[in-house]
Amino acid sequence: MFWDRPLRLRELDLTAIEQARSRAGELLMPLRAMGRCHEVVERLAAIQGTAMPHVDRPGLLLAAGDHGIVAEGVTAYPSAVTRTMVEVFLRGGGTCNALVRAVEGRMAVINAGVAEPIGASPTAPEVVLWVDQPVRLGTRNFLREPALTPEETAQAVELGYETARRLIRNHGLDVLAVGEMGIGNTTVASVLTAWLTGAPVEAVVGPGADLPAERLDRKRIVVYQALKRWADRVRTVRDALTYWGGLEVCAMVGAFLACGTEGVAGLVDGFISTAAAACAVQLMPGLETFLIACHESAEPGHGILLRWLGWEPLLRWGMRLGEGTGALMAIPLLRLATELHRRVWTFSQVGLTR
Amino acid sequence: MFWDRPLRLRELDLTAIEQARSRAGELLMPLRAMGRCHEVVERLAAIQGTAMPHVDRPGLLLAAGDHGIVAEGVTAYPSAVTRTMVEVFLRGGGTCNALVRAVEGRMAVINAGVAEPIGASPTAPEVVLWVDQPVRLGTRNFLREPALTPEETAQAVELGYETARRLIRNHGLDVLAVGEMGIGNTTVASVLTAWLTGAPVEAVVGPGADLPAERLDRKRIVVYQALKRWADRVRTVRDALTYWGGLEVCAMVGAFLACGTEGVAGLVDGFISTAAAACAVQLMPGLETFLIACHESAEPGHGILLRWLGWEPLLRWGMRLGEGTGALMAIPLLRLATELHRRVWTFSQVGLTR
Repeated sequence: MFWDRPLRLRELDLTAIEQARSRAGELLMPLRAMGRCHEVVERLAAIQGTAMPHVDRPGLLLAAGDHGIVAEGVTAYPSAVTRTMVEVFLRGGGTCNALVRAVEGRMAVINAGVAEPIGASPTAPEVVLWVDQPVRLGTRNFLREPALTPEETAQAVELGYETARRLIRNHGLDVLAVGEMGIGNTTVASVLTAWLTGAPVEAVVGPGADLPAERLDRKRIVVYQALKRWADRVRTVRDALTYWGGLEVCAMVGAFLACGTEGVAGLVDGFISTAAAACAVQLMPGLETFLIACHESAEPGHGILLRWLGWEPLLRWGMRLGEGTGALMAIPLLRLATELHRRVWTFSQVGLTR
Repeated sequence: MFWDRPLRLRELDLTAIEQARSRAGELLMPLRAMGRCHEVVERLAAIQGTAMPHVDRPGLLLAAGDHGIVAEGVTAYPSAVTRTMVEVFLRGGGTCNALVRAVEGRMAVINAGVAEPIGASPTAPEVVLWVDQPVRLGTRNFLREPALTPEETAQAVELGYETARRLIRNHGLDVLAVGEMGIGNTTVASVLTAWLTGAPVEAVVGPGADLPAERLDRKRIVVYQALKRWADRVRTVRDALTYWGGLEVCAMVGAFLACGTEGVAGLVDGFISTAAAACAVQLMPGLETFLIACHESAEPGHGILLRWLGWEPLLRWGMRLGEGTGALMAIPLLRLATELHRRVWTFSQVGLTR
């Protein structure tokens, strides 16, 4: 099983971080006057092992899967939308596609467990990798039985891990955004957030994709029952992923683990991506330094999870789409930060000292 | 005088804004799921008069000037630094230059009133316009006498207005960032903010560029005395700009006015840029729709001023450099927003309805 594989975090380069910090101190501006630009540059320096980090080859790993819990009426849209949207992504019509092209990136799409077979092949040039290997056709309804078996969980994590490694290696990526598509997955992220943080169910449940206000209570009850149902069985993150799913969440956990083992910055997107990142960090302590929280979404549980993690997101634009879009929006910001770090003159270049 | 010229705001295109909003409603995503992306696209649509707005030709107008108030010990750096930095900008070594190049923009530099003559010519390719027409060599010390005469004020505003118009027209700009360089100008912005908002001096004064904590009280006293000294003379924004300056602030006011008359989005940078924008909005009601607050800086008065204006900035990265850098950082975000608005498929394109 995947869990038996010896995974090792890439060493952080502490010399590079010091060199980057020292260069920031020499730039012709008040000390560290570009605020978080310096912070992200130094993080990238540590990960990439160079005082002059780069964001030249960004990528997106998009994992898709369906959720048996949708039968309980927790979503505004039916599971069939997951399949439709994956087909749209393969053909280049999604928001993620537009953003990947705009940042000159590459993307991989994984069918980790969509309920219906995907009836399309990739035709969009930005989709360089299409992995159509559903572990099963959607998870089980976790109010009735565990969403996955331990084997299925491990298999989905491995799928994400291997796909991320291929994408990173084949295309020489320096940053990897990790996003998803899966009707029902804010319900899963809410359960995982309540379980991880201990926050009350009322606080972590939001409308997700357009759930009408009058159905929010139903979603809260489902989350509450899901937690209660498996409370004494779930002891570890692996258990949590098994009992509640979902397959795309597991694949994202694997993708974040690959960021750590490959030494690439993982760009964390919204609520579901952050839930997967939080699980990955629990599985592999130290991984958090490889991950950058890119935005805080409109979904209330996301802010709770970010604050529990101690992560201050780069953007707060009230976005709530998923697909990795919030992470992709941050890529040009990271690029500008590395660009100014590299290009601005230093005090000594103009014959001055600070 | 400049004030006698008949300035007319470009009409906003209300049809374009409705068409853009309607298109946002057709995009294949939960309704308005990209949050502020839709908001900025619709603002640009109204300004540009098209349902498909663009950020293809960004520009930066950078105005520089010195301040007599520096004699009172309110800054960590001497006025000479203003001249040095303007020379750096002309030669391409500033943070603003690196960012302008990275977003493929064009920049104009105005010497509106630097204390010493500038000993350089533009050699950086991004500097397409250099206007070396100091209205005077720095403002007067406003604890002793008015910073400017009414004629000088009008002249500096006109300089910014005309330069912005030239830059916009000659290079077909679709957005214009407005930034500055001027040792002492956070003191001026603090005075203007306290006068405009009525906020207490303690709240609006911060360290600006590296002022040590033990000298903050001195700066507060100067701001307090400056307000008190001219309280009964200053009745209008024109008076405020005359009594307190500065020349680069006046030029920025003119540049923002030009955004309104030319129909180009004005990208507001940090504390000083926002103070100039606030003055411009007072002078020309309706201009606020043409202006986009790009970031909230680390300087405490900036947040107070933004909240008084009711403006929610796009970024909060703790930056505090000026030079238009916070506005330049936002350009790729605006670009991605317009890009997804244009490229994402609609429900009808895939045979669905919302």
